[in-house]
Amino acid sequence: MRAVDIILSKRDGRTLARDEIRFFVDGVTAGTLPDYQASALLMAILLRGMTAEETAWLTDAMVHSGVRVDLGDIPGVKVDKHSTGGVGDKTSLVLAPLAAACGVPVPMMSGRGLGHTGGTLDKLEAIPGFRVNLSLPEMKAALARVGCAMIGQTTEIAPADKKLYALRDVTGTVESIPLITASIMSKKIAEGIDALVLDVKTGSGAFMKTEADSRCLAESLVSIGNASGVRTEAIITAMDAPLGRAVGNALEVIECIEVLKGRGPQDLIDVSVELAARMLVLGKVAKDVAAAELQVRHAIASGAGLERFRQIIEIQGGDPKVVDDYTRMPRVADRHIVVAGRAGFVAGIDAELVGRASVALGAGRDRVEDPVDPAVGLMVVAKPGDTVRAGDPVLELHYRDRGRLEAATRLTGQAVTIGDARPPARRLIVGEVR
Amino acid sequence: MRAVDIILSKRDGRTLARDEIRFFVDGVTAGTLPDYQASALLMAILLRGMTAEETAWLTDAMVHSGVRVDLGDIPGVKVDKHSTGGVGDKTSLVLAPLAAACGVPVPMMSGRGLGHTGGTLDKLEAIPGFRVNLSLPEMKAALARVGCAMIGQTTEIAPADKKLYALRDVTGTVESIPLITASIMSKKIAEGIDALVLDVKTGSGAFMKTEADSRCLAESLVSIGNASGVRTEAIITAMDAPLGRAVGNALEVIECIEVLKGRGPQDLIDVSVELAARMLVLGKVAKDVAAAELQVRHAIASGAGLERFRQIIEIQGGDPKVVDDYTRMPRVADRHIVVAGRAGFVAGIDAELVGRASVALGAGRDRVEDPVDPAVGLMVVAKPGDTVRAGDPVLELHYRDRGRLEAATRLTGQAVTIGDARPPARRLIVGEVR
Repeated sequence: MRAVDIILSKRDGRTLARDEIRFFVDGVTAGTLPDYQASALLMAILLRGMTAEETAWLTDAMVHSGVRVDLGDIPGVKVDKHSTGGVGDKTSLVLAPLAAACGVPVPMMSGRGLGHTGGTLDKLEAIPGFRVNLSLPEMKAALARVGCAMIGQTTEIAPADKKLYALRDVTGTVESIPLITASIMSKKIAEGIDALVLDVKTGSGAFMKTEADSRCLAESLVSIGNASGVRTEAIITAMDAPLGRAVGNALEVIECIEVLKGRGPQDLIDVSVELAARMLVLGKVAKDVAAAELQVRHAIASGAGLERFRQIIEIQGGDPKVVDDYTRMPRVADRHIVVAGRAGFVAGIDAELVGRASVALGAGRDRVEDPVDPAVGLMVVAKPGDTVRAGDPVLELHYRDRGRLEAATRLTGQAVTIGDARPPARRLIVGEVR
Repeated sequence: MRAVDIILSKRDGRTLARDEIRFFVDGVTAGTLPDYQASALLMAILLRGMTAEETAWLTDAMVHSGVRVDLGDIPGVKVDKHSTGGVGDKTSLVLAPLAAACGVPVPMMSGRGLGHTGGTLDKLEAIPGFRVNLSLPEMKAALARVGCAMIGQTTEIAPADKKLYALRDVTGTVESIPLITASIMSKKIAEGIDALVLDVKTGSGAFMKTEADSRCLAESLVSIGNASGVRTEAIITAMDAPLGRAVGNALEVIECIEVLKGRGPQDLIDVSVELAARMLVLGKVAKDVAAAELQVRHAIASGAGLERFRQIIEIQGGDPKVVDDYTRMPRVADRHIVVAGRAGFVAGIDAELVGRASVALGAGRDRVEDPVDPAVGLMVVAKPGDTVRAGDPVLELHYRDRGRLEAATRLTGQAVTIGDARPPARRLIVGEVR
């Protein structure tokens, strides 16, 4: 079998055979297939597409590039959640302790922020001492003790994905539904879970800008998950404006603790509760979503979710006192306020521009190897639909470096739209696929 | 400027800017642009296409990756000829001495055979002692003395093309009209010629299988050449069956000498004379093609073309006595005859299969670095349209190694078609673009 013949097949729009896809993935994993051939094939896949069957084979080959973790010794239906990425998208830190508190084991494997979107690992690492790089035995021990572990992708899990993702990032081959599906689902299938809830974001701040594309991606993800024995469902949620008010790692952790204390922004509560409730149903600790939602809201009201988050922090080496004392979190002293230029209704806060402003401040990264500053970020003071007078604060930037602030304000200057009419209420949960 | 943004632009079907194309070509030339980004962009170009303007910019950037030779000190209009490649396509060795004998300076820069097609350099090197790797000063000296030099691409000429071609060959990105155009024309423009005649092959044995594709390529090549100040015209010629009878390096040289002696196969004579005549018109030594054709045929009849070829061989270090004594050419003793399985008319001799059989015998190469055997090859004994009886010879294979012969006969077994009706006469010159 020759790599160039596989490239030619896909280039000319033909369907690849299972062993051709396996040859490609094995070659990438072993390093025997040169990057220049892999990237040519990735571009051909992006432009020519893949059938559902090819996508399943690609996912399967990527799962088999590493180990499929066996969590059979942990009792219960293990459920994870994955988001396709957004700005201020911090639901994992809320729903994982809530689902665990309700009796669902949550072995969560997350990623880092890249581009304008944040990542769960960066947020968790804003908590002093928190270790995300647990080994598999440590992860299992945490899961057995506190019902949840929140870790990064280990080297055993889908190593082909790690190599392919790095290559896609620099070759313009990220935005392909089959490639995104195989990347996400290979990791999720390999981590040994029984069920998965997906949060597929849609809108200007998401990778998928239209509802139709988001639905296509959701359908692809759900069908591959179910075909691989992982019960999978997805909700599609709006990502035009940031979710909640906080954007930036420590700021987002604090906002999540607020939600677990029964406070916090309504949109963040609603999406987190919806996702957690679906995890309870898939985890067979609730009979339907309505019943599950009551259980989740009770876990907030009773403080059980907050208590569970404190235990997760502690078992992963973090400082559990941050839950009660936010001054123990990293922070910066300097603030810059973006004010409304005129009176009216806040019509929109552009999620992508806010995300890029947060990266400019140092909260995110342009390249995988860049460090992040856990303390910087911004708060959305006025949310879409709020009324403002001229001069009222809309955004509050927490900055460390004046040069970075200038780069950020060039972006936030265009992020806020103020109109005369009250904007129509945002639909937060746009659809579902199951 | 970031390479990934250029890839994204082309991937999404946008037109690249001149400085983006320059950035890409300069990066490839300098080695600062990784191969995996170059190959992703090449695949995007192949699948999305390029406008005529983008193709011109790409060609120009590739010309500027090296030097543009100045032949201003050689008097006259310098004219070269280029073929897109075929089987038994040996016209260069006939028309270059003829055009030179008629007063047109011919600085010819050629390539080696790759895949099922042969290359002029391999044919010339079948002549004992013939050196194709002249330096530019040596080339100019030969041009001044005998009016012709036949050499390989020097390292100064379009180095970007050398790198890109090697990459395209292994990434399934060869068959793109803009990329083929830039590759051919950058070298031709850089070699310092004033005018160019192109022989664009069409048919089963050519890169372009249909007349429509061949015409598209011819139009692209001609427009880029003329826009760059090189007067360019093209003829489109049939490549369904091998041209002439000989396929293989030494065999083809001998056949060319036969044509220069006024003998040889009619199809080879016709295409060679047509191309040479157009070179005379572009070279301003004839007022029109009809007058030019008379001059060319006279150069055959008078022996002036043969004499010129003898001089070219001598000045490039080869043994000029081969012209009179073919036993001085490399040859093998063993012959294998492919016979007609039934009586009838030869309906077709598949050029690609014959080309591949020749490669199997050792006359060509699958990889650039492979050596070729100058002596082996095959002769087409019965041409399309000829009548044969069962058992009559159709192909005569000249082989050195029995294992290679077996591989070759597997291919030649399917190459010959015999029918009951006389096939329609082949149109050899299918069209022209100027």
